[in-house]
Amino acid sequence: MNDFMSIAVNEAEEGIKRNHGGPFGAVIVHKGKVIAKAHNCVIHSNDPTAHAEMLAIRKASRKLKRFDLSDCELYTSCEPCPMCFAAIHWAKMKTMYFGCTREDAAAIGFDDKYIYDVLGCKTDELQVEQIQIDRESCLKPFSSWAGKPDKKPY
Amino acid sequence: MNDFMSIAVNEAEEGIKRNHGGPFGAVIVHKGKVIAKAHNCVIHSNDPTAHAEMLAIRKASRKLKRFDLSDCELYTSCEPCPMCFAAIHWAKMKTMYFGCTREDAAAIGFDDKYIYDVLGCKTDELQVEQIQIDRESCLKPFSSWAGKPDKKPY
Repeated sequence: MNDFMSIAVNEAEEGIKRNHGGPFGAVIVHKGKVIAKAHNCVIHSNDPTAHAEMLAIRKASRKLKRFDLSDCELYTSCEPCPMCFAAIHWAKMKTMYFGCTREDAAAIGFDDKYIYDVLGCKTDELQVEQIQIDRESCLKPFSSWAGKPDKKPY
Repeated sequence: MNDFMSIAVNEAEEGIKRNHGGPFGAVIVHKGKVIAKAHNCVIHSNDPTAHAEMLAIRKASRKLKRFDLSDCELYTSCEPCPMCFAAIHWAKMKTMYFGCTREDAAAIGFDDKYIYDVLGCKTDELQVEQIQIDRESCLKPFSSWAGKPDKKPY
């Protein structure tokens, strides 16, 4: 078994034992070394965004003092949900190793697959009603940003 | 203009002024009252996940001491990226108001639309290579979870 994935699996088991959240673990590797590991903490921290991958990305960013993790790799015990999948993109990561799948997660009651289906327009059952209002007013900060001479694009 | 959206827009402007990150603001409302507001802090906190909606969800969850925000509404100055969109689902929210669109964001250099396209299988240009390894070993925590008598499903 891959050494880094083994650490991710141990994290997942640790999270279950400590009642921190669902059975998921993740590891971030930089230049061949683990710089962050985490398990799901949704229950423990009352934070719906506290998935293993999110916590690992946030830890790695804090450690490297940059939001660009393009020279890092992610190992995650389960295929990331769309939240984490998008976060991996925002972190500019290029390689992600995953263990089990969204279908495996669905089989034990974690509905990552539903959110993938919503994003892929594969379901008509929508949990979230999306209502657009005040577009013109909301565009004002975009003009402020576009006209800001000292902005740091990212 | 909607009062809550106005607060979201002010947050966005505040974030630009303070060089905290991109021009985005979000507000969470519970029983008619603002319980969390936030602006993008990706640059300031060196955290690629620090989008306005994510920070607002995390603040609201801390305040209510629960990860279930199904009785809350989100106001966001721009259509959420897939990370935030999925987070809204994990928080079990039912209504989201947004101002400008992913196309408006793309026009000032924020590539939310690309990640939507990846998730919707509308592009072949993939930033992240996804490699599956060690599925059997990664399924072990799932068995631990399934067999855990005192687990808190969520």
